[in-house]
Amino acid sequence: MSLGRPLEYDPEKVLDAAMEVFWSQGYDGTSMQDLLSATGLSKSSLYQGFGGKDELFARCINRYAETRSAKSLELLNNAGSALRFIEATLLRAADEACSSEVQRGCLLVNTANEFSKSDPAIAKKVAAGFDRFRGVFLAAVKRGQREGDISGDMDAKVLANYLMTNMGGLFTIVKGGADEKTVKDIVHVILKTLQG
Amino acid sequence: MSLGRPLEYDPEKVLDAAMEVFWSQGYDGTSMQDLLSATGLSKSSLYQGFGGKDELFARCINRYAETRSAKSLELLNNAGSALRFIEATLLRAADEACSSEVQRGCLLVNTANEFSKSDPAIAKKVAAGFDRFRGVFLAAVKRGQREGDISGDMDAKVLANYLMTNMGGLFTIVKGGADEKTVKDIVHVILKTLQG
Repeated sequence: MSLGRPLEYDPEKVLDAAMEVFWSQGYDGTSMQDLLSATGLSKSSLYQGFGGKDELFARCINRYAETRSAKSLELLNNAGSALRFIEATLLRAADEACSSEVQRGCLLVNTANEFSKSDPAIAKKVAAGFDRFRGVFLAAVKRGQREGDISGDMDAKVLANYLMTNMGGLFTIVKGGADEKTVKDIVHVILKTLQG
Repeated sequence: MSLGRPLEYDPEKVLDAAMEVFWSQGYDGTSMQDLLSATGLSKSSLYQGFGGKDELFARCINRYAETRSAKSLELLNNAGSALRFIEATLLRAADEACSSEVQRGCLLVNTANEFSKSDPAIAKKVAAGFDRFRGVFLAAVKRGQREGDISGDMDAKVLANYLMTNMGGLFTIVKGGADEKTVKDIVHVILKTLQG
């Protein structure tokens, strides 16, 4: 690291800029030119520092999962109750799937559906990203069980997976046209399930 | 229809062949050449009969929703109980997301996540397709309530939307790496929710 010229860019800023493009346009919909414009890098810097489009995409997925799950965990730690955190998280997911200009949803959910398992390296990154979010839900469920808001009769890991399923599904149905009232009714059923 | 040469192809077979390509490769990942190879049509026949890639895609989405929801309704009518039909449908969805060679999942879920609402014409087709499947779930929930397997305390429409959410979510988490045991545990929670 001490050899050669210092980097002329902040790697995290580059990743964030590229992540925004992939998130809005998907992997297939993103050209090398889009990435160069968004990051301000030259083609050679991008290849040298990030190994080209595929590796850059993989690093963006990592960064997305890392930063978003950390933010989510912070929200959990600051929440008055775990159940309210879960409710807010599900409602925010639905909101993100419909309120932004391009309704871009969640980068991980989009990537899972764009690639399925056809690209094992990407599938592994997506699975690792899902694991981070599952970890946050697991912490929330365990706390909710301690707080008495979530039934202790059910396995916390199963409920965390159940919440992952519903979170992914909410993105999809909002993109498929579900309105706010529909989302709220669904979230109500999910919360009732947790309460046992 | 009585004027000119008779069609040299079966329109439904053409749609089915094109649907398979879009389903496996997604809209962006499908080239005009892929469509011509799969359907065996000349470029001019494809444009004349189906209006090009966009209109063909829209018609494939319609056909997918129509044929698959009709098959689903038939399964419901032949099922011993509505609850068992719902269980089998959810498990089959998860299975389809992982067992086929390309893990292609559901054309509607994939399209919803590929396009989000960025293309209003496609979004409308996806929403109409979702409506068909929601209709099948609604019929199943109402029958389940009559049969006493599903709680009558909950609104059937809300439960149908809840099932749509979980079906979409199962596709996503399986593509994100969830295994069979995880899926079964989640489906168990969903069925328990319906039972109230």
